[in-house]
Amino acid sequence: MTLSPLQVLTLENFLSLPALEESPAWEFIDGAAIQKPMPKTRHSILQKRLLSEIDAHSKDYTALPELRCTFGGRSIVPDIAVVEWNRIPVNSAGEPEDNFMQPPDWTIEILSPDQNATRVIDNILHCLRHGSRLGWMLDPDDYSVLSFMPQQEPDVYRVDRQLPVIEGVDLNLTTQQLFSWLKIARR
Amino acid sequence: MTLSPLQVLTLENFLSLPALEESPAWEFIDGAAIQKPMPKTRHSILQKRLLSEIDAHSKDYTALPELRCTFGGRSIVPDIAVVEWNRIPVNSAGEPEDNFMQPPDWTIEILSPDQNATRVIDNILHCLRHGSRLGWMLDPDDYSVLSFMPQQEPDVYRVDRQLPVIEGVDLNLTTQQLFSWLKIARR
Repeated sequence: MTLSPLQVLTLENFLSLPALEESPAWEFIDGAAIQKPMPKTRHSILQKRLLSEIDAHSKDYTALPELRCTFGGRSIVPDIAVVEWNRIPVNSAGEPEDNFMQPPDWTIEILSPDQNATRVIDNILHCLRHGSRLGWMLDPDDYSVLSFMPQQEPDVYRVDRQLPVIEGVDLNLTTQQLFSWLKIARR
Repeated sequence: MTLSPLQVLTLENFLSLPALEESPAWEFIDGAAIQKPMPKTRHSILQKRLLSEIDAHSKDYTALPELRCTFGGRSIVPDIAVVEWNRIPVNSAGEPEDNFMQPPDWTIEILSPDQNATRVIDNILHCLRHGSRLGWMLDPDDYSVLSFMPQQEPDVYRVDRQLPVIEGVDLNLTTQQLFSWLKIARR
């Protein structure tokens, strides 16, 4: 069985599909399977650098790329899921379980040029409703970060405003610094 | 003097420019003049129909298309500004003043295919921070409405969920009903 966009199925069926091994990842939202867009170069650079910066500034949390998180009737794959180490289930061999059935503590999405922003925001809000404490949507075309916290208005961060992080991650970063990573790639 | 995108100027200079009479409207955001995209057919249909529905369901509020609202250091032109009648300043001839220097009570934006969603959301959040009670971003490509209220998480409305309105507007409308207006146009 292969997946086609917006195919209607159950979460259980979806999770048993071989297509779940594909890249870019398929997500399950409101009864439909939707494939994430193929990441472009700018997306990959921001993702890779953020992963290492978050990991370098926390001992209790880890930043994971493309971790499938299944909870609240959806199965989503944030570009970066920041999760507390002690929340990652471990199997009898002492290795992480394959399935993560919780929201990340902090979800980060990097908007691709042709990606629908409302759908990305919808997934971030789904995380917040189920316990995530922070969500970021990076918009590389607008050089901005749209930040979400539970029970608050979102906020747009630009230029030299310091970005909000979760407690336990000691990262001081402005929007400008974040997008300057794209320039480093020109060397 | 003609305007070029992202030209840096003061709010005072911006407001004195003849280009302000142009359509699509120019907005002034963070020191830069930015022109709104040319509305497409679906945009126009949704805008026109929403205007008449809101007007038909309120006696205290009026829905105005392309009203320039200048406040808090920005000069923005929501696709629809819903404003309480008695908040509209009237001149000595009993006619509305040309300049509206307040946020609308309810701001409605209809996302165009090539429009940057973060910038649209940024303007909605600017309205909320300065006193607007409700903001909608219609996404015709996603058949969804992203709704914003002060000091709350935004919420995505789809299908048969009833859309939130402000007190004083007695409009019962689901997302599905709203986007079905596009189908009527095929007759």
